[in-house]
Amino acid sequence: MCETKMIRLGVLASGSGTNLQAIIDSSQAGKIPARVAVVLSDKADAFALKRAEKHGVPHFFVDPKKFDSREDYDEELIRILKEHQADLVILAGFMRLMSSLFVQTFRNRVMNIHPALLPSFPGTHGVRDALDYGVKVSGVTVHFADEGLDTGPIILQEAVLVLEDDTEETLHNRIHQAEYRIYPEAVRLFAEGKLKIEGRRVRILGD
Amino acid sequence: MCETKMIRLGVLASGSGTNLQAIIDSSQAGKIPARVAVVLSDKADAFALKRAEKHGVPHFFVDPKKFDSREDYDEELIRILKEHQADLVILAGFMRLMSSLFVQTFRNRVMNIHPALLPSFPGTHGVRDALDYGVKVSGVTVHFADEGLDTGPIILQEAVLVLEDDTEETLHNRIHQAEYRIYPEAVRLFAEGKLKIEGRRVRILGD
Repeated sequence: MCETKMIRLGVLASGSGTNLQAIIDSSQAGKIPARVAVVLSDKADAFALKRAEKHGVPHFFVDPKKFDSREDYDEELIRILKEHQADLVILAGFMRLMSSLFVQTFRNRVMNIHPALLPSFPGTHGVRDALDYGVKVSGVTVHFADEGLDTGPIILQEAVLVLEDDTEETLHNRIHQAEYRIYPEAVRLFAEGKLKIEGRRVRILGD
Repeated sequence: MCETKMIRLGVLASGSGTNLQAIIDSSQAGKIPARVAVVLSDKADAFALKRAEKHGVPHFFVDPKKFDSREDYDEELIRILKEHQADLVILAGFMRLMSSLFVQTFRNRVMNIHPALLPSFPGTHGVRDALDYGVKVSGVTVHFADEGLDTGPIILQEAVLVLEDDTEETLHNRIHQAEYRIYPEAVRLFAEGKLKIEGRRVRILGD
């Protein structure tokens, strides 16, 4: 057994923060050697901020309107994340594309989750696009963020079957359940030093 | 219980014909209400032709060199398929793109199988491309052929996990096993009249 350092997470969320909650729960249950150090949002009323408050996690609404450019905005995010010594940045329904300044600052230390089996159905409507295309299998992808839209190296994926009578809502509900399983798992693998990026492939070392 | 008509299959194959074999086996075991009526190949030495011979199925090598255009070639395929009263055309490792004449003649009656979860990784190297991209889940797709390259409406898909030490060969081997399950199953659903195409989506009626 080797002792694993407890890493610090910076979570960015625009909405209800259910993936944030899944990670907080895994952390508090001692399932992952990581704890949420700070939560940032670009929406004042994001429920993710309330979740942070409830769990005593420092949280900040950073208002995009107060910044002239995406780089300026991202600089403020970076400042706060560094102030709270975030080892890993978790995008959890954060509805802004990150600048290359941000991606370069946290190179290979920013994770994103996407509700489809990338490279199929990137973009903001992964669930709807999969249904419209008529796939029989969709799923969830956790990947490292790079400068592209949902193009970074893939860490974990889980397949989710599309059912005959699925609507966007029913399929998304099952996809969410898969998200709550694999996002904390990806954080655990990172925290335990078990992820090795080789080109586009992410190797998972002996687990 | 309703009585199901036994449908006639025309199978096109360029190679060893393992999917042809899986369909012959399912047919002979009485698992699908279909039988292979004719096998065509564009390769004189395709082992698929030998399999057909062994099972007493009419089989023909149709030499592309003897035809001036793809349309002329496809007209000859169509002639033979009609002569053998094929209700459904099965592409089983047939390494030629079908002309729109062919697709229109057998509209919604041509199935293809692809060793990836379409729309990811279309084209001739679906397994290798998936490995190179670094996905953690790939799979198999059976779809109706249309004029595009692996773009037709999807009938069935099965996910196949990519393992840490997979090579193209080991992954392809597991994908083949999934192919031998879902291709006969797609034929069965077609033969039983349970596939309903609605735009891009293929509905599977009460099964």
